[in-house]
Amino acid sequence: MKMKLAYYLFLRLEQCGATDTFGIPGDFARSLYAQQAAYGLNTIVCAHEPGCVFAADAYSRLRGLGAVVTTYGAGGLNMINPVAMAYAEHSPVVVISGAPAIAGRRENPVFHHLVKDYGSQLRVFAEVTCASASLTEATSAASEIDRVLDACLTYKRPGYIEIPLDMTAMEVPVPSPPAKCFTGPATNAAAVEEAAGEIIAALERAERPVLYAGVGIRRYGLVEAAMKIAENWGLPVVSSVMGKSAFPESHANHAGVYMGRMGEEQPREILENADLVLAAGVIFSDVNTGFWTARIDREKLIEMRDLDVGISHHTYRQVPLNGLVPYLATLLPQGKNRSRPAFQRKEIDSSVTLDSSRLTTMQLIQALRKLDQSRFSFLADVGDAWFAGLELDADIFMAPGYYATMGFAVPGAIGAGIADPTLRPIVLVGDGAFQMTGNELSTLVANRVNAIVIVLNNGYYKMLSALDGHRDYYNLPNWDYVKYAEALGCPGARARTGEQLYRALEMALAASQPFVIEAVLQKDDHAPVMQRIKDFFEQAAGKHP
Amino acid sequence: MKMKLAYYLFLRLEQCGATDTFGIPGDFARSLYAQQAAYGLNTIVCAHEPGCVFAADAYSRLRGLGAVVTTYGAGGLNMINPVAMAYAEHSPVVVISGAPAIAGRRENPVFHHLVKDYGSQLRVFAEVTCASASLTEATSAASEIDRVLDACLTYKRPGYIEIPLDMTAMEVPVPSPPAKCFTGPATNAAAVEEAAGEIIAALERAERPVLYAGVGIRRYGLVEAAMKIAENWGLPVVSSVMGKSAFPESHANHAGVYMGRMGEEQPREILENADLVLAAGVIFSDVNTGFWTARIDREKLIEMRDLDVGISHHTYRQVPLNGLVPYLATLLPQGKNRSRPAFQRKEIDSSVTLDSSRLTTMQLIQALRKLDQSRFSFLADVGDAWFAGLELDADIFMAPGYYATMGFAVPGAIGAGIADPTLRPIVLVGDGAFQMTGNELSTLVANRVNAIVIVLNNGYYKMLSALDGHRDYYNLPNWDYVKYAEALGCPGARARTGEQLYRALEMALAASQPFVIEAVLQKDDHAPVMQRIKDFFEQAAGKHP
Repeated sequence: MKMKLAYYLFLRLEQCGATDTFGIPGDFARSLYAQQAAYGLNTIVCAHEPGCVFAADAYSRLRGLGAVVTTYGAGGLNMINPVAMAYAEHSPVVVISGAPAIAGRRENPVFHHLVKDYGSQLRVFAEVTCASASLTEATSAASEIDRVLDACLTYKRPGYIEIPLDMTAMEVPVPSPPAKCFTGPATNAAAVEEAAGEIIAALERAERPVLYAGVGIRRYGLVEAAMKIAENWGLPVVSSVMGKSAFPESHANHAGVYMGRMGEEQPREILENADLVLAAGVIFSDVNTGFWTARIDREKLIEMRDLDVGISHHTYRQVPLNGLVPYLATLLPQGKNRSRPAFQRKEIDSSVTLDSSRLTTMQLIQALRKLDQSRFSFLADVGDAWFAGLELDADIFMAPGYYATMGFAVPGAIGAGIADPTLRPIVLVGDGAFQMTGNELSTLVANRVNAIVIVLNNGYYKMLSALDGHRDYYNLPNWDYVKYAEALGCPGARARTGEQLYRALEMALAASQPFVIEAVLQKDDHAPVMQRIKDFFEQAAGKHP
Repeated sequence: MKMKLAYYLFLRLEQCGATDTFGIPGDFARSLYAQQAAYGLNTIVCAHEPGCVFAADAYSRLRGLGAVVTTYGAGGLNMINPVAMAYAEHSPVVVISGAPAIAGRRENPVFHHLVKDYGSQLRVFAEVTCASASLTEATSAASEIDRVLDACLTYKRPGYIEIPLDMTAMEVPVPSPPAKCFTGPATNAAAVEEAAGEIIAALERAERPVLYAGVGIRRYGLVEAAMKIAENWGLPVVSSVMGKSAFPESHANHAGVYMGRMGEEQPREILENADLVLAAGVIFSDVNTGFWTARIDREKLIEMRDLDVGISHHTYRQVPLNGLVPYLATLLPQGKNRSRPAFQRKEIDSSVTLDSSRLTTMQLIQALRKLDQSRFSFLADVGDAWFAGLELDADIFMAPGYYATMGFAVPGAIGAGIADPTLRPIVLVGDGAFQMTGNELSTLVANRVNAIVIVLNNGYYKMLSALDGHRDYYNLPNWDYVKYAEALGCPGARARTGEQLYRALEMALAASQPFVIEAVLQKDDHAPVMQRIKDFFEQAAGKHP
């Protein structure tokens, strides 16, 4: 069977959940764009390449796969940082880049958008993806597409597919029926059973077991299975920072986000006093461990990772998360009767009230906690915006929780809103990050994604000052964010007090289009996590994360 | 002799002309920023990493070297596209990136901003730079800095220096006195003399010789020498597109910019009818050759390249541009008396008048041509803005003339204005490019660079439609660019007619701060070069550059 190369790619994207793509057209992508329009795949044109990838990343987190379509050089090479983020964050985004026609490569070696040679861009992307391919010949094109997509979905990492201009519309042999997505990581059924047996025995023995929920649960679509395990065994559930909302935070078993000394007290006590920690898809990074202040004994830890599982000091290979967790969900306790986890969920602190004299981060958090969280997806950018977001009980929360790049949240809202139109995106973004990618408000407007974008304006790179003390070069220029929004066709309001914030939020909720709220905060006002980080680094001055 | 590693680097930057750096602080760069402040090197903080490199690129074009200081991962990897541009455009920009401390690398392999491993970022930069180094040990640090800077200045390409957090302030052995910049490309004096002899003989023989001036003349600081050659031999001078203003366009011998069929008639006639074309630092790229429509016989061509010279079908190795051109400038004609080049410079077309009914690109060009060009540097972004700029007679003109990425001009103005405060930057930028990096207006305001930014607003990716015909996805959202500017603290005015443009330009010229002019143009109005490109691709539909 034969099919247009591009059509086969688009078909496969659709099968894997990506029915929309993000990008910016360009001359080497003109054939890709034309084919995409003819095929009928929805194309979201963003303002700047980094925004395209951030949008696709958020889309991927909700749909299972995100895709960007870009031109060569000036387009593709402007995406390296957000693709690196997708790699670090285990978010499968496939970058599809046009490239110079094969036919002209011998005669015309010196053309625009070229860096060193025809292999440069492929080699750069190889450093930030789990699989990459340049489709330079017809017979292998379809299998190369399958290989890259399969790797993306298996390892939950970005991939790269480069398509020369004269290959896009070529009829190429394709498998019939098309290959299935996601063959999955290598699995040894006997090892899965043995590991599960050991885990069940440990759970039966444990007095104070805890489920430690990481981002892998959401990436491999294991939310239901994780809920079942928690419910079957009466496990309190603590999330990692990066895994926030991987386990729904509205669930009765959810006890909070663990971040070592940097995080809240309740989840820390539950996790550190546990006699068994069943970690599922947790990445033990500096941020997840509260800059290495986490205290979890190796002997108490069962670490279910993407591809294998470690129990105390031994490891089962070929026991992937997506094989083990669903299997565990079918196994019920045989011994003592498990009841609800014995902890009292922390209440919303009602002592913080919206006042008329000033606006604080805590007031902002309080106002957001009063919303019906199930109607929204929350996206947070790096810094106080992110740490403020940690205080919410969200079922969908997205942030650059590992890689910690700035600029994710506004463009992320494009992807989130398009991936799931039933959830209204609420963006928490610092002024520094907004100055990088706030231009994608324009894409929200153009695509009628009615995100609520809250700009935390404190005139400062506050995260850096928390780590490093005050420096003049951490000051940020002050923009009029409401006027900025209006210039891009988006209404907005400024809030300098709690009451003004409340009214602005009312306006935003009533709006059927995107809405910007400029939340004017003081430099010395911090979200609780940021305050703890600041105190920690001030004490341990000189010691870097 | 010993010195702080960072201080040695800053000292070397200053020696090479970079007394300012561009960047965004970040945690892995916090030590670099602190040392920089202590040393007293001027730090320009931009809004977004791509802007930092574009600013440094423009700075480099005026000063000979540009430098950026960035954090690891999220910072450095967000610079790949503009660094690739600097590579393609032969602009020496050195990227200085902080990196995780060496001391912690064994224990903490999973930290934020990391992609695959500690070598990932270095390997990515190796693809877009001519030399790269990670300064992981004291004894070689200074010589590694010297090696990278020397390569940047010798080959006029970007370089990369990575400095772990705990190396920045380390006292390291340094040469005393510090190494000299720029040892220069390998030179064989006998070969230079023989090549020069052959060139002089050819010039003596030729009836209609022409100097074809490329970007290399400016990059290697050979403007004076090139003028001398032109004057000594009475050569008309035609510039390449990328080399526009490499030879001052106010010079009487300057005959225009050659771009094959896409360019103007006068320089084409002069160049294609010449019996000797002495090309200096010209890169025969698709754009420079008007998409391969240039017609220059190999037998008539002397091609003085960066590292060697090709004459007809033979080549002299180790005869670099910066050795040959100054030598040629000392050799005077012995034969017939050379007088002024026999051509009449084209006059400004005074038939275009500023009218009150509409604004056209030609009116915009006309208005700009009436300015005293010697008081300004011109920066153009890709598309109609660039092609409009080609119509000016500028002594300083900067554009992404080879790599053709969008987003260069606004941040470029930061670098241009700081590199030479006696020249006021005038930016020509399309709406598409402005939507990418217009946020750097904020950096212009903060650093009091009083650029005049002219946004050509036609609501369209016009360059793409010229190549590819109309497509809905080439439409751009409409921003209120005046309001946008005001939101960032920059005044502006909108011009819908020639008269309004004239008034807006008056206001801008009177302003002592940056000023934005939104020039509202029609979709079907094109700069002359764009019109020729459109006609060419419509005729040869299907044939891609």
